[in-house]
Amino acid sequence: MIEIERKFLVNNNSFLDDFSRSNRIVQGYLSSHPERTVRVRIKGENGYLTIKGKSEGFSRYEWEKEIAIEEAEKLLQLCETGVIDKIRYDVIVGTHIYEVDVFYGENEGLVLAEIELQTEDETFEKPNWLGTEVTEDVKYYNSYLSKHPFKTW
Amino acid sequence: MIEIERKFLVNNNSFLDDFSRSNRIVQGYLSSHPERTVRVRIKGENGYLTIKGKSEGFSRYEWEKEIAIEEAEKLLQLCETGVIDKIRYDVIVGTHIYEVDVFYGENEGLVLAEIELQTEDETFEKPNWLGTEVTEDVKYYNSYLSKHPFKTW
Repeated sequence: MIEIERKFLVNNNSFLDDFSRSNRIVQGYLSSHPERTVRVRIKGENGYLTIKGKSEGFSRYEWEKEIAIEEAEKLLQLCETGVIDKIRYDVIVGTHIYEVDVFYGENEGLVLAEIELQTEDETFEKPNWLGTEVTEDVKYYNSYLSKHPFKTW
Repeated sequence: MIEIERKFLVNNNSFLDDFSRSNRIVQGYLSSHPERTVRVRIKGENGYLTIKGKSEGFSRYEWEKEIAIEEAEKLLQLCETGVIDKIRYDVIVGTHIYEVDVFYGENEGLVLAEIELQTEDETFEKPNWLGTEVTEDVKYYNSYLSKHPFKTW
């Protein structure tokens, strides 16, 4: 399906006052090519395999299947070097959910917020902790961060 | 799981006298890297996503899931250039099945036979049409052929 997502920097930690749940995410890439990323993810107790196509504006083709966590662990071992480790906080704001990712390891210091929309022109509430939009900046793709971590910028 | 497979050239077409079934296969690669190939395949009426690790001798880690044919068609559009088109003949020889692939398109003229084994030292019957072994020659990997087709050799 086509996913429509917008991504922002985060100005401060006040989102932590309002999050509804959080999950540890560890993910690696079998392909980090921006036109065909293949991602292996462990989120909490679940495994996922996700394939994404090229971005066009705020939209990107995305295919995802849940897989057994044991299979995800095996596939993570095949991945390119540069595993992403982060905690994702779900924060409900108005009628939307922001997913706020706090990165660790080589990307420590980076915090990003993402919101999924139904249409490209859908409006949404912007909380005070939301910073600059970086949707179209490939530097903030997790696939890019896995190769060029935030600490090396 | 770990797959143990051996691959051979094919000397002549006499395998066609004995095949039990055949399927058209069209496949592309989201990653053609030999340490982490990600293959999208349509075989007959079914779709498959397959991930393979690095070869070690005759063995290679392989993960495969059946997916909807419509999803496979979408994912094929994301693949690297160089789609593989072939007909696979299943040929029973003794207690084993040889999968004989007759290639078309840019790989026309190439015919390869593969046999799956339970152990690395398992013995198996070699029919008269079976040629030179090429198991460890990466040139005959389908992922390599997708980039460097047989007609260009």
